[in-house]
Amino acid sequence: MTGLTYRASGVDPSRAEDALAQIKERIRRTKRPEVIGDVGAFGGLFASPGAETVLVATTDGVGTKLDLARLLDRHEVVGTDLVNHCVNDAMAMGAEPLFFLDYFATSRIEPAVFGRVVGAMADACAAQGCALLGGETAEMPGTYGPGAYDIAGFLVGAVRRDAILDPKNVKAGDACIGLPSNGLHTNGYTLVRAILSRVAAVQGKDMSDVLKAPRADLRGSSLGDALMRPHVSYLPAFRALRDVANIRSIAHLTGGGWEGNLPRALPAGLGARIDRGAWHVPPLFTVLAELGEVPEDDQWDTWNMGIGLVVMVAPEDAEAARDAVPDAVLLGKVEPARDGERRVRFA
Amino acid sequence: MTGLTYRASGVDPSRAEDALAQIKERIRRTKRPEVIGDVGAFGGLFASPGAETVLVATTDGVGTKLDLARLLDRHEVVGTDLVNHCVNDAMAMGAEPLFFLDYFATSRIEPAVFGRVVGAMADACAAQGCALLGGETAEMPGTYGPGAYDIAGFLVGAVRRDAILDPKNVKAGDACIGLPSNGLHTNGYTLVRAILSRVAAVQGKDMSDVLKAPRADLRGSSLGDALMRPHVSYLPAFRALRDVANIRSIAHLTGGGWEGNLPRALPAGLGARIDRGAWHVPPLFTVLAELGEVPEDDQWDTWNMGIGLVVMVAPEDAEAARDAVPDAVLLGKVEPARDGERRVRFA
Repeated sequence: MTGLTYRASGVDPSRAEDALAQIKERIRRTKRPEVIGDVGAFGGLFASPGAETVLVATTDGVGTKLDLARLLDRHEVVGTDLVNHCVNDAMAMGAEPLFFLDYFATSRIEPAVFGRVVGAMADACAAQGCALLGGETAEMPGTYGPGAYDIAGFLVGAVRRDAILDPKNVKAGDACIGLPSNGLHTNGYTLVRAILSRVAAVQGKDMSDVLKAPRADLRGSSLGDALMRPHVSYLPAFRALRDVANIRSIAHLTGGGWEGNLPRALPAGLGARIDRGAWHVPPLFTVLAELGEVPEDDQWDTWNMGIGLVVMVAPEDAEAARDAVPDAVLLGKVEPARDGERRVRFA
Repeated sequence: MTGLTYRASGVDPSRAEDALAQIKERIRRTKRPEVIGDVGAFGGLFASPGAETVLVATTDGVGTKLDLARLLDRHEVVGTDLVNHCVNDAMAMGAEPLFFLDYFATSRIEPAVFGRVVGAMADACAAQGCALLGGETAEMPGTYGPGAYDIAGFLVGAVRRDAILDPKNVKAGDACIGLPSNGLHTNGYTLVRAILSRVAAVQGKDMSDVLKAPRADLRGSSLGDALMRPHVSYLPAFRALRDVANIRSIAHLTGGGWEGNLPRALPAGLGARIDRGAWHVPPLFTVLAELGEVPEDDQWDTWNMGIGLVVMVAPEDAEAARDAVPDAVLLGKVEPARDGERRVRFA
């Protein structure tokens, strides 16, 4: 009987170090002036932005989009997703991003995959002007199946105290401005997988064949391509809107879809009337809904249906807001909620 | 063929809400004056501590200690572990904790388990004076096996700019003060599981029988009890040391053991000579090493061997430091590293 070692038990700390070394330069490019010292310390250091500001902290995962990304060998997308999801959540409070940290857990680190996922996080951080300040990499043999991994992101942003977006500021009559999504972003993928697996069974195909087949109802694109678009960062649009409009609040349409998120940006007693004719629901959503025979309410309670962000602005600013962002649409307006009814009413 | 819904596909957003509702009061008890607004917004708000301070951010997991905690139905311990691990990492930079966020991912939320894990995080946050500012709960059917879950924590602390612990301040001759661990904390559990599984096979028992049996070589305690002690928070000891000594740097002995962590708190060119007679390696470590026939170096490169934190102080402060914390021990001192040798030398 030979002696047991940590490596023999399945964990090799040098794998994490090697994987990280590959992308060190891309991480370094995310450095901001506030960052103090180098990577490798027990904690990342970032100069505090000053007592007139408020820190905004948020954490997210990307859910089972991970499984499709693995199946389609599109690991980069989930790295980008994670950063942009966090950026949007902090932004929904009015904040600009400051720094980001990631958690990457798997059964056994594959340095190439790790490099693609976390490298994409670094690039997304650089694109958003956000420092990648630290991370944790865990090898947990047995917890994750072979090749499976999970990621979580943590972001801290800052907002001037008088610029915090507080749903309490929203009034009946305020305009709801919508910004388009480019797909499901990171939500509702478990439902998608159930749909794909049913379609695959009916057609006697593999799920990856279903994902890769070009489809006329997606204008020649495949479901895989449509499902692997990265979560949009709304930071540029937010900055443009902020310059021209009195933004009252923002709803980021993620898990829980419309009814699960829009009311989070409204005060008690108010709801929203949304004109379904204000935009075209992209074909990805209608195709998925048809393939899975997904009831109408479930679609809208799970997916963003083509709108990733809803920005509440003063009614007099609605036109300027729409003009400031080329693809913004006027969705409807805030109005009193009705007892016993959903707070988002579609007209 | 019936229509598919998000719930039918295995995700029920109301499960996460219900689970969270159970522990809302315990989360509320972690509130600090800097916290603004309520839980439920897209991001948690925390008043910035002012430009004379530096933020310290850290992220951690608890690794495969999770598997043993599940096996032994001791879910609380991993919640406490996660918070204290993060607190210690931020403290290793000189910081006091400000706020914490958690990520909890599983195949299907079991509200009772979630409440025990995240409730323990809330209690640990309250004990450390740290706000539990937010979290993300993910149901990912298929990614995690039945009953399995993973957790990650994210903590932001603050340190006065002139009090940042920088390894560059360490000089040859500085004293190394050790603070005892109460077990493995959160590191090296994959090796432990390999040992336990070998012992179980040899004895023809279940792993849980091996874990639960009282042992004479653990003074009547079981391996399970010894392995389920929570990660110690060194914050009270740190405060006591800071009051009496010029702390140069701190090494938190986690993944990678002694050689993997102590050099992180030393400048290039310096190492440490540690007197192995300065403390007794607790029986848990020697029992595990014997059961697994783990080579000496592997023990010290994987486990903390009874010392959870090493604090470097000016030599003239060594005695005061030892006196300030009842169970602190003088481990040895900093000295020049030798080319081609390990930086931690045991004497």
